Amino acid sequence: MSRSDCEALDRTDPLAGKRAAFSIPQGLIYLDGNSLGVLPRNVPERVRDVVERQWGRTLIRSWNEHGWFQLAAKVGERIAKLIGAPPGSVIAGDTISVNLFKLLGAAVPMNQGARVILSDSGNFPSDLYVAQGFRDLMDDGYELKIVAPEEVMDAINMDVAITMLTEVDYKTARRHDMKAVTEKAHSVGALTIWDLAHSAGAIPVDIVDVGADFALGCTYKYLNGGPGAPAFLYVRPELQDKVAPPLAGWWGHADPFAFDLTYTPASGIIRNQCGTQPIISLAALDAALDVWDDADMGVVRDKSKALCQLFIDLVEERCSAHGLELAGPRGMEERGSHVSFSCPEGYAVMQALIASNVVGDFRAPDVIRFGFTPLYTSYTDVWDAVDVLTRILDTREWDKPEFTARKAVT
Amino acid sequence: MSRSDCEALDRTDPLAGKRAAFSIPQGLIYLDGNSLGVLPRNVPERVRDVVERQWGRTLIRSWNEHGWFQLAAKVGERIAKLIGAPPGSVIAGDTISVNLFKLLGAAVPMNQGARVILSDSGNFPSDLYVAQGFRDLMDDGYELKIVAPEEVMDAINMDVAITMLTEVDYKTARRHDMKAVTEKAHSVGALTIWDLAHSAGAIPVDIVDVGADFALGCTYKYLNGGPGAPAFLYVRPELQDKVAPPLAGWWGHADPFAFDLTYTPASGIIRNQCGTQPIISLAALDAALDVWDDADMGVVRDKSKALCQLFIDLVEERCSAHGLELAGPRGMEERGSHVSFSCPEGYAVMQALIASNVVGDFRAPDVIRFGFTPLYTSYTDVWDAVDVLTRILDTREWDKPEFTARKAVT
Repeated sequence: MSRSDCEALDRTDPLAGKRAAFSIPQGLIYLDGNSLGVLPRNVPERVRDVVERQWGRTLIRSWNEHGWFQLAAKVGERIAKLIGAPPGSVIAGDTISVNLFKLLGAAVPMNQGARVILSDSGNFPSDLYVAQGFRDLMDDGYELKIVAPEEVMDAINMDVAITMLTEVDYKTARRHDMKAVTEKAHSVGALTIWDLAHSAGAIPVDIVDVGADFALGCTYKYLNGGPGAPAFLYVRPELQDKVAPPLAGWWGHADPFAFDLTYTPASGIIRNQCGTQPIISLAALDAALDVWDDADMGVVRDKSKALCQLFIDLVEERCSAHGLELAGPRGMEERGSHVSFSCPEGYAVMQALIASNVVGDFRAPDVIRFGFTPLYTSYTDVWDAVDVLTRILDTREWDKPEFTARKAVT
Repeated sequence: MSRSDCEALDRTDPLAGKRAAFSIPQGLIYLDGNSLGVLPRNVPERVRDVVERQWGRTLIRSWNEHGWFQLAAKVGERIAKLIGAPPGSVIAGDTISVNLFKLLGAAVPMNQGARVILSDSGNFPSDLYVAQGFRDLMDDGYELKIVAPEEVMDAINMDVAITMLTEVDYKTARRHDMKAVTEKAHSVGALTIWDLAHSAGAIPVDIVDVGADFALGCTYKYLNGGPGAPAFLYVRPELQDKVAPPLAGWWGHADPFAFDLTYTPASGIIRNQCGTQPIISLAALDAALDVWDDADMGVVRDKSKALCQLFIDLVEERCSAHGLELAGPRGMEERGSHVSFSCPEGYAVMQALIASNVVGDFRAPDVIRFGFTPLYTSYTDVWDAVDVLTRILDTREWDKPEFTARKAVT
């Protein structure tokens, strides 16, 4: 495989035309779209319109006239299509962590007997923190059990009230078999919460086929919604009207503008709303979703696997002398859309990469991580990134104080 | 009092120069800044910079290089100055409703014996909904007791774990005496949560002098942060490290990028953060706060009282034949910065006002509400608004199908 082979792949890439929809800085190879997606070109104008025309001119009337009050539901419907969810089952808003608390508070009391919230050590830590906060607040015998990812299936037993897992491991890209885990959970009477943070926009999810009870996800990674863009949550239609929202707020009320003193939840997914949402950020997300309107998730996934495989092959071919080891499984079906290697001096190596305009990120203790976003990452990007990585390792370019000195990283 | 008297007041208004900092549509008299503040002129450029330069060009590195990760704390410090809070005691983020849940979850368990959450029927309904959700989730004998505003003092007894009140009533503008209520609450061992939604930016608050344990507020009203701008919360410094965050998320972790599996709360106010915040909306709020840097809250309050008094006097002088009745107390010290009248056919009257470019809002069943925002409302605005209101009432201009037909209002 040569660079010209990669150029040939780019020429026949059915998604090649999507790259023009994004504003990618000249000369930058951005392999961190699994952390913060790049700016879609249509977002600035949409944000400008929301700020200057809608807020600036129409002011309070925009809640109705520009659909601000319905925007979270509208965005939810657009995300629903990307995860195989039926209409009326997804709502945007708040953060992943807040939404996870909502779902724990809704789900766990549905199971009167069992008291174990089962998760794994590959879950994103904030999800585990939310469950710890929930457990400590409830003071009702709930237990958070954290096992290794490969032990999850065996750990599902009659004590489990809920499984709370992330499909794709933020470090290793290992995927859970959502359908198998969900079936096992249901067989013991447990409910399931799936975090799709690294799935939505990267992997075709068929949440109905999976049978998931609850799901949630983030929109600033593969969905390119912007920094801290509002999250989303899904509730299986059959459960929606059984949810007692733990975060009960006026946006989830059956009649918010009646200003009743008593909370009456709206029917359906709306009751999972709580307070007033950040409209400017939500509008940016709405605009960012335009690019997905005609995207075929199967084509996206095929390219994702091809990019990841190419990266793994090239790194293992060219950097094998430097002690890099692939994290997570090797089979593409068992992986998400990023690739991590444990790498001696990984922190410094990543800083040197960034200084050479190849942006991935570092995760403690020694993981260098690269995200492959099919809508705007090219095969040539992959080739060039490995080329720079090889140079940095071969020449020990990373071994400079400006790269080895640790600073806060995100 | 004539229109030329109002023009004279505008000429000597020490805040007159602030109006130029806002983008107010030509010909519009906007008396709804207590619901959604107008657009500060510096916000569009700041938002454009965050979207196009920071997100678009610097991408993931902006979390450090452009201070995104610290922005909620920075904004919190700026709001702290407006409510008399010391450094390190206020953090921005999430919504009022979510923040209220955080504070209930932190505060209520601090009181081991008492089980009553005391609030009043003048509180904003969403606050009551949050408390109902909290009570129902906890299933631990907590009771939400809602009394009339004037009964609050007498209802504070040894059964009360916490008082949860809003200083200024969203309908009537009636103010609680925060200091007296707080002292009474403390005398029976109860803690206090104060909602400053209609206070911050309108009334000088000295939260330390009040002695409040917890407070929170919103930023899209008098602080002009934009639609759904992130909220804020305050924790009395002595209590901060006793808070067990019920919404435990990675932004509140002592070392978020260590990615520990176990939650260890950060010390101080930071632990009240939960998930990743919507940076574009937060940046808009940050820019909107610039106008407050040199604003004297005493001067703001003096003008607020003068505008409200002028409005009340003119309405009572000119519209007395039409059955309007002032809601809330008459004394300016007992009021916030908006004025409501119960008004027969209030809904239609407000629609007619809006059609004539005088924007207030309507609150069921019959309240027409007008907010007076000293930084950009002029005395002449008040005169002109009452002039239009008088015409609409005198000519029954409101009695048209397009005004009387109800539709959803915000």
